[in-house]
Amino acid sequence: MADNLFDFGMIGLGVMGRNLLLNVADHGFSVIGFDKDNAKTTALEDSATEGTTVKGVPDLAEMVQGLKTPRKLMMLVPAGKPVDDVIASLIPLLDKGDVVIDGGNSHYTDTLRRVEYLKETGINFMGMGVSGGEKGARTGPSMMPGGNEAAYEHVKPILESIAAKVGGVPCVDYLGKGGAGHYVKMVHNGIEYAIMQLISESYVILKKGGLTNEQLHETFKSWNEGLLQSFLVEITADIFAQKDDKTDAHLVDVISDKAGSKGTGKWTSQDSMELPVAVPVIDTAVAMRTLSGYKDERVQASSLYADETQGEAPSQEELIAMVHDALYFATILSYAQGLAMLFQASKELAMDIPLPKVVSVWRGGCIIRSSLLEVFTKAYAENKHLSNILLSGEVAKIVKSTLKNTRAVVALAASEGIAAGALMSSLAYFDAFRSERMSTNLIQAQRDFFGAHTYQRIDIPGTFHTEWGQN
Amino acid sequence: MADNLFDFGMIGLGVMGRNLLLNVADHGFSVIGFDKDNAKTTALEDSATEGTTVKGVPDLAEMVQGLKTPRKLMMLVPAGKPVDDVIASLIPLLDKGDVVIDGGNSHYTDTLRRVEYLKETGINFMGMGVSGGEKGARTGPSMMPGGNEAAYEHVKPILESIAAKVGGVPCVDYLGKGGAGHYVKMVHNGIEYAIMQLISESYVILKKGGLTNEQLHETFKSWNEGLLQSFLVEITADIFAQKDDKTDAHLVDVISDKAGSKGTGKWTSQDSMELPVAVPVIDTAVAMRTLSGYKDERVQASSLYADETQGEAPSQEELIAMVHDALYFATILSYAQGLAMLFQASKELAMDIPLPKVVSVWRGGCIIRSSLLEVFTKAYAENKHLSNILLSGEVAKIVKSTLKNTRAVVALAASEGIAAGALMSSLAYFDAFRSERMSTNLIQAQRDFFGAHTYQRIDIPGTFHTEWGQN
Repeated sequence: MADNLFDFGMIGLGVMGRNLLLNVADHGFSVIGFDKDNAKTTALEDSATEGTTVKGVPDLAEMVQGLKTPRKLMMLVPAGKPVDDVIASLIPLLDKGDVVIDGGNSHYTDTLRRVEYLKETGINFMGMGVSGGEKGARTGPSMMPGGNEAAYEHVKPILESIAAKVGGVPCVDYLGKGGAGHYVKMVHNGIEYAIMQLISESYVILKKGGLTNEQLHETFKSWNEGLLQSFLVEITADIFAQKDDKTDAHLVDVISDKAGSKGTGKWTSQDSMELPVAVPVIDTAVAMRTLSGYKDERVQASSLYADETQGEAPSQEELIAMVHDALYFATILSYAQGLAMLFQASKELAMDIPLPKVVSVWRGGCIIRSSLLEVFTKAYAENKHLSNILLSGEVAKIVKSTLKNTRAVVALAASEGIAAGALMSSLAYFDAFRSERMSTNLIQAQRDFFGAHTYQRIDIPGTFHTEWGQN
Repeated sequence: MADNLFDFGMIGLGVMGRNLLLNVADHGFSVIGFDKDNAKTTALEDSATEGTTVKGVPDLAEMVQGLKTPRKLMMLVPAGKPVDDVIASLIPLLDKGDVVIDGGNSHYTDTLRRVEYLKETGINFMGMGVSGGEKGARTGPSMMPGGNEAAYEHVKPILESIAAKVGGVPCVDYLGKGGAGHYVKMVHNGIEYAIMQLISESYVILKKGGLTNEQLHETFKSWNEGLLQSFLVEITADIFAQKDDKTDAHLVDVISDKAGSKGTGKWTSQDSMELPVAVPVIDTAVAMRTLSGYKDERVQASSLYADETQGEAPSQEELIAMVHDALYFATILSYAQGLAMLFQASKELAMDIPLPKVVSVWRGGCIIRSSLLEVFTKAYAENKHLSNILLSGEVAKIVKSTLKNTRAVVALAASEGIAAGALMSSLAYFDAFRSERMSTNLIQAQRDFFGAHTYQRIDIPGTFHTEWGQN
């Protein structure tokens, strides 16, 4: 093997790392992958497309020495200490100007720390969010890199070639300084949590309305052909069609309702409170996943608090139309809250995140890709400094068209005792957001009453305190 | 001045520290306070009740030397570095067996760290939450101490004498190990955020129903004489009666709706996600305070999304009865979520928090005191291991009696476009909690579909993965 043969290297050949690296090879680059586990280096070479240059090695130094300079390499290892361990091993092997990309689910504060730490070595460290799952990694993911912009230029040709394309435009772009790449991916995942929760609430409302799995399949399938077109609605349609291979049931009906999570939704909520910025639909999605784990208590509570039914139900046809609009509305609200979080984080954390590029990158390859992102792309084209997507005239037109049905669905869920926390919290956010005056003046009065926390007035500048209850 | 004259010392003579110390003196103990600021030591002595022994000194060593051993002293300084600074100054001045109480709003993880740090010195460090505001500090606060139980015995007589009393029982008790005192106070404040938000939503619903400030005053006043009896409802009644001294208006109408916060509600939400435990009504309250700060955007949005009205409104009398029940329901849900968080945190963080004592301590003196706490005290008397207060038969009876009206209020708010996020999220939590089967099986299917995250089945043990969309 000649030295400096390879264009791109990968550290960590789990399914994501392997698939991403094979994707790079499929686009004509020579690639080399490292994993301590021989089975994985073998699996890499075995799954390579014929005619591509793919090598797997069990020795990190061998991999690094095989790369053309400036070296371009990515790591896909579990977040946390493993990333720091890889970095420590890499430092003596790399030279100034080399580019190292962390493509895992690292927390942005870790990424920021690593960028700063490696600055003095001259090694360019970039944090990059990757979305699209296993299949996307191989066929075209959405990628969210952040860090040193000049370093990005070195890896840009490779990343653009492997990314998903929408109308020929690659779903990857430089998304800001420091930990911006992982920050954007974190918020992406928060939005993903929200939309998944909203779809699951739409599901239970329709199911309680009497729809069978076949009807649910048809409903989501037709929704995916209209305004609600999105990856998550598409796979939801497929899910309702899936038969169990062990019983006569539809698979969805035998799956446990304890939902798992990897923590990125939680990070989004926790960090939103740090800024602070309000993302209640994501908070609710996180809380509902947690609640899904209270199985024993829920079983007890279900007998203690039996269903009551009230009022007359809409026809199935009406119900489907209503839920369609509510899901569309609340999906817009999920993006709105996530994008508003990025808008503020970009300023507060000096990341210079270009929101028009973010929505463009999200149009393809990633889990939250949807036709709505085209709408947002247009909205940002008109005003790239939009602080909240709800303030776009075009978006407002869509939102208004869905409002009546959204209100009806929330009212129905409330009356019928259907848990629809994320739908409700989308609507509550919207109604608070469109309130010139909220009812929080009362909270300020209470805080001043019991804690002398003072308040501001609407008519006179300054800070005031009142001895309450004296008149 | 003779040595060892004083029973109790206070570091930090801001209004809370001064009032608490004067409260101690009022109960027959001799007290000494330290503050670098001479104005504050003078203010302390000037406000002492005649015949009590109260001294203010500008020198920490002088204060410490004036205390009987084992010394008992409290600090009430801003959370964070100031607490560590005071501790560093105290270490050379104190002896083994002395008891130092941090009565400020420290984060429980800081308290835990300090307890551990001071262990080797033999100094007993306790974190204690104090609720009741300025007035409560002077006349009878609710206090939530945690840390070394043996050390608590030294300060118990003083704390019990100054605490609020309910039926002769002091609102202070040993509430667990390590940072338990500040943990319980954090959750107390989370519940406080939730109830304040719920009251403010009840206010806006009633206001949109046409109630004047006079009617609001009468409504909350009569509510405070019934099931909803609580400090926060009581002061809310007073707030609506308060006239402005600068204009003809009622004061509440000229107060800005940008709500402030000191961060403890945020901590509760963030930490709940760490455990994890679901407290969506607190999350919503935190988000709504944040949203209240988006003044400029809300003004824009209010013209972009004008009110639509729908359906017929209930009569004012009906509306008041409905909102009463909804507020009662959601207040119970706020306590339920907070107490469930303490239940889990007590286990996870090995704090041994006695929930029956927590609700007893909260019955008087603190901001969230209410007649409901008597109900919960009875529920825990029946079953002290109750994981969620909603699983008590007695509580269930009350909750069920309020459900119909709660559902009607949420449906009304949804239809009429009134922001009622905390009411909605209380109901959504309840309806999820009482679901034997949630709709999160769909989320598990989606996660397995796009990320091969696997799922569990309801009928066969084990972990499964499906190649979705193949049949």
